[in-house]
Amino acid sequence: MIICQVIGHVWATKKEETLSGLKLMVVKEVETNKTDGDTFVAADVVGAGVGERVLVVSGSTARRALGKDDIAIDSAIVGIIDTLEVDRELKKLSEKQVK
Amino acid sequence: MIICQVIGHVWATKKEETLSGLKLMVVKEVETNKTDGDTFVAADVVGAGVGERVLVVSGSTARRALGKDDIAIDSAIVGIIDTLEVDRELKKLSEKQVK
Amino acid sequence: MIICQVIGHVWATKKEETLSGLKLMVVKEVETNKTDGDTFVAADVVGAGVGERVLVVSGSTARRALGKDDIAIDSAIVGIIDTLEVDRELKKLSEKQVK
Amino acid sequence: MIICQVIGHVWATKKEETLSGLKLMVVKEVETNKTDGDTFVAADVVGAGVGERVLVVSGSTARRALGKDDIAIDSAIVGIIDTLEVDRELKKLSEKQVK
Amino acid sequence: MIICQVIGHVWATKKEETLSGLKLMVVKEVETNKTDGDTFVAADVVGAGVGERVLVVSGSTARRALGKDDIAIDSAIVGIIDTLEVDRELKKLSEKQVK
Repeated sequence: MIICQVIGHVWATKKEETLSGLKLMVVKEVETNKTDGDTFVAADVVGAGVGERVLVVSGSTARRALGKDDIAIDSAIVGIIDTLEVDRELKKLSEKQVK
Repeated sequence: MIICQVIGHVWATKKEETLSGLKLMVVKEVETNKTDGDTFVAADVVGAGVGERVLVVSGSTARRALGKDDIAIDSAIVGIIDTLEVDRELKKLSEKQVK
Repeated sequence: MIICQVIGHVWATKKEETLSGLKLMVVKEVETNKTDGDTFVAADVVGAGVGERVLVVSGSTARRALGKDDIAIDSAIVGIIDTLEVDRELKKLSEKQVK
Repeated sequence: MIICQVIGHVWATKKEETLSGLKLMVVKEVETNKTDGDTFVAADVVGAGVGERVLVVSGSTARRALGKDDIAIDSAIVGIIDTLEVDRELKKLSEKQVK
Repeated sequence: MIICQVIGHVWATKKEETLSGLKLMVVKEVETNKTDGDTFVAADVVGAGVGERVLVVSGSTARRALGKDDIAIDSAIVGIIDTLEVDRELKKLSEKQVK
């Protein structure tokens, strides 16, 4: 699961029929170490709002999150983060281990 | 799902037989934060045209979008984007969170 | 499997129901050659603690590690590393092979 | 599907038994926007030759292309490209959209 | 399949039970075009030794290579490379095609 922030919505009238009725949100990866996180689209199953930090799953797991295997979804928001507790010292330490 | 723009077509006479009759389009990732988006090939199931912005799914989900599991496709266009509404402030904010 | 270090915890009250009761930990990739390893969230099935180096699996394999296929998890901690024995000469040698 | 060029062959005497009899080719990603495309190994099911541009599928889809699910293959050449028609203006335009 | 070199071993006493008895090796991607190849852990099914160049599969295919689907493995060594024959001219040519 990756840590993202919800930054918007996307609408598509012409779409594969299994996508009908799904709430599609634009999310952006945060807490990553790339210059900038990826931006992509995920189906929401937990009622997330713009601005919230969320947990996002990908691939076949996203279909499991939506409860049916024949759906054309490969990314889903599965949790709204209350607290993220990271040991910043360890974070830096492990940065040093990386060569 | 990632956000792409359709930029062309590809033709292959010699191909795995399950690909027969599929419309294969060249797409390019947009709304990404890489220096430049990836270019790849996706099967179209929604009648997308060159120039349109589309939603693209990957992996086993692409086979679900095409409605059969034994097809040699790992990328599919599943929606044509009407509106993409992104909070640019949040986008920048989350960029600052990234270190 | 990738080599990570556990660096924290994450809590989410509103979440997809299959995630209830799972211990979700923040992990960071180490022993990678990127400028800095990725940070993401994995379900723990081996009782790992913050600071430990662990083996992490992704995708459909993470669901296998949790013993059920309908769970909304795409990353799991499956082992706590006792010893990591790497031939540093070979490591450098293979770096030279890369062009 | 990604666009690759066949650049060589690989031979392995000691191998997992499901790989016996497969033609394994070295391919290199082209039409990408990275500094340089990835080089990897794919099983060929369409009779591709060194120098040809091909379509390559990955993951579980590669096993579908080979027609059996229990094979130890995660990458397969599924088409030989005759024509690749890309709107270079659009390509550049979408590059500008990327920030 | 990617081309790697075996560079070490990893031991884990506390691990998910399906990993018992597996030989886990540290491998490093070679013949890539990144500044440096990734280092990760793969289960060995062909008796590879440290220093050898091997073929590595990922994802659900790794479980196929191990012959059972319920195993917590997402990366497996499936062949020991005897000969790798790459057309270096083509390799450079395709580098020029990449923009």
